[in-house]
Amino acid sequence: MSQRRPCAVRRSRPSNVDEFELIQKYFVRPDESASVITGIGDDGAVLRPPMGKDLVTVVDTLVEGVHFPYAIKDFEAEPLGYRAVAVNLSDIAAMGAEPRWMTLALTLAAVDESWLSFFSHGLHKAAAEHGVALVGGDVTRGDSVVVTVQVSGHVDPGRAILRSGARIGDTIYVSGEVGDAAAGLRLQQNDPPHPGPHCYLIDRYWSPTARVGLGCALVGRASAAIDISDGLYGDLDKLLTASGVGADLYLDKIPTSIALKSSFDQEQQRSFALSGGDDYELCFTSSEQLPGEIAGVQVTAIGKVSKRPGIICYDDGKVVSYVDGGYRHFQ
Amino acid sequence: MSQRRPCAVRRSRPSNVDEFELIQKYFVRPDESASVITGIGDDGAVLRPPMGKDLVTVVDTLVEGVHFPYAIKDFEAEPLGYRAVAVNLSDIAAMGAEPRWMTLALTLAAVDESWLSFFSHGLHKAAAEHGVALVGGDVTRGDSVVVTVQVSGHVDPGRAILRSGARIGDTIYVSGEVGDAAAGLRLQQNDPPHPGPHCYLIDRYWSPTARVGLGCALVGRASAAIDISDGLYGDLDKLLTASGVGADLYLDKIPTSIALKSSFDQEQQRSFALSGGDDYELCFTSSEQLPGEIAGVQVTAIGKVSKRPGIICYDDGKVVSYVDGGYRHFQ
Repeated sequence: MSQRRPCAVRRSRPSNVDEFELIQKYFVRPDESASVITGIGDDGAVLRPPMGKDLVTVVDTLVEGVHFPYAIKDFEAEPLGYRAVAVNLSDIAAMGAEPRWMTLALTLAAVDESWLSFFSHGLHKAAAEHGVALVGGDVTRGDSVVVTVQVSGHVDPGRAILRSGARIGDTIYVSGEVGDAAAGLRLQQNDPPHPGPHCYLIDRYWSPTARVGLGCALVGRASAAIDISDGLYGDLDKLLTASGVGADLYLDKIPTSIALKSSFDQEQQRSFALSGGDDYELCFTSSEQLPGEIAGVQVTAIGKVSKRPGIICYDDGKVVSYVDGGYRHFQ
Repeated sequence: MSQRRPCAVRRSRPSNVDEFELIQKYFVRPDESASVITGIGDDGAVLRPPMGKDLVTVVDTLVEGVHFPYAIKDFEAEPLGYRAVAVNLSDIAAMGAEPRWMTLALTLAAVDESWLSFFSHGLHKAAAEHGVALVGGDVTRGDSVVVTVQVSGHVDPGRAILRSGARIGDTIYVSGEVGDAAAGLRLQQNDPPHPGPHCYLIDRYWSPTARVGLGCALVGRASAAIDISDGLYGDLDKLLTASGVGADLYLDKIPTSIALKSSFDQEQQRSFALSGGDDYELCFTSSEQLPGEIAGVQVTAIGKVSKRPGIICYDDGKVVSYVDGGYRHFQ
């Protein structure tokens, strides 16, 4: 971890702890990975990848007031830390790679040690679940909290699963159930809260399950994959565009949870499932007839890759129109 | 590059361009590097490192209002982009590694295409100088501009130069001249500006020269190295602490520029040279008697590694006291 000199000193809350101590206290963990030659504490990390593998690198940023509410409470910093790692692990999973190392660039408005303790706990929890070592980073001051995590891993050479490999006639699959996270976010934002089985849905927003094991199991079986961050419809569209193909999408086959079904009407369920982001499930294509469960994760066939560009939606065999409302920044 | 759905939509300036177009327009460049199997546009980048090398990874964040002034003008975004890459290349240089790939996590308050055009030009310029490919990233909205760049490269296995290798009796060296950047920053902040040969000094703040060639040439010759970001005195102290040694530092040997000498009195020069940050020169130790120039960069002996912890300063052979004012975040 390194620090950089500022050109204007601003402070929001007093603290007697400097960044070196913060890093030591909250982010340095004994590292048992043989692949980490030098971790946190030098100008950079020195890593030893296994011979002959391809490297896969992903990066994602979560911004206060944009990706999570302003001034979240201390205990909410734990799922934030978890989520900051999980969204990256999801990208690694979509490439079929095994995650190994991560860095953290953390911008804070002020030092709040309780907040940091919760945050780092969530961060290390998500990393430990997949044997990922925190090998470096940067802690800086700023106007609001910005969390950038980068995760690197590896995959056999030439075997990474890209968005561009879908072929006409492939089946389109989705892992798990979709729509929960967007529904959970809606519930959390509602005041007074919406009645129903909400904790499950809200938890699905804050603590997404990165499908790392599934991603690795799909190497050689999936022709293309993408993780669902902006919504199933929009992310499938990106995969199809990258592959130069189109799709028939069977809306009635899209798997949704009992919690979602019991909390929202059918139109809302469909909107969350198709255009709600933050699912972090995998959408992928394969020429194979895959089983209903791979690496312990439910896998559902939801469509077919076709020649004609665009997505044609079917509901109970009939063509229906759907206008995607998936999210794009700056628009 | 990927994007994430926000939980609260805020906007500061209208724009008709979304993040996908921004990335295509300003950040995607034809990539001729054989080591980049898949670059920007998928869930992650796929990279092919040379067989049997160690990887070196560094990351640094620049925050608006902290590391550079608020609302910088469009033309100032070019040196900002340059600087965001250069400070990372400097860390890579301090490890003796060859930089190869980088990612960018860019948080913007609003889309200003002219600003982005200048910024990306500076970013690509610094990358191109050292053959570094931009392979991925994330563009998000936020309250202010936050730029996180991560650079990865490689070095022969076990040959990375660490901070911890300095041995008693080693000579302490510094590259180039120190103090200019901090002086340049002071000049830029002064209103009315300080008279004198200022452009050179201000430029040394905005466009630091990463000593990549020197760093590579020091592999096997330097016992320890650090790049000077927080000030020569404080950064040397970190190197010594990591090595479990102390130093005699000859203040009168520390190289400063003619521009610095002609603009500030001796006490100010010394303060900028010892405690001013942002130099991005290398401070390193070696058991060898090194020539005055390595890889085209001036190299000056400024001290000796000693057994007793701490730094003893000498001026013309006499012990003098020096109180370091180098920067630490949050204090």
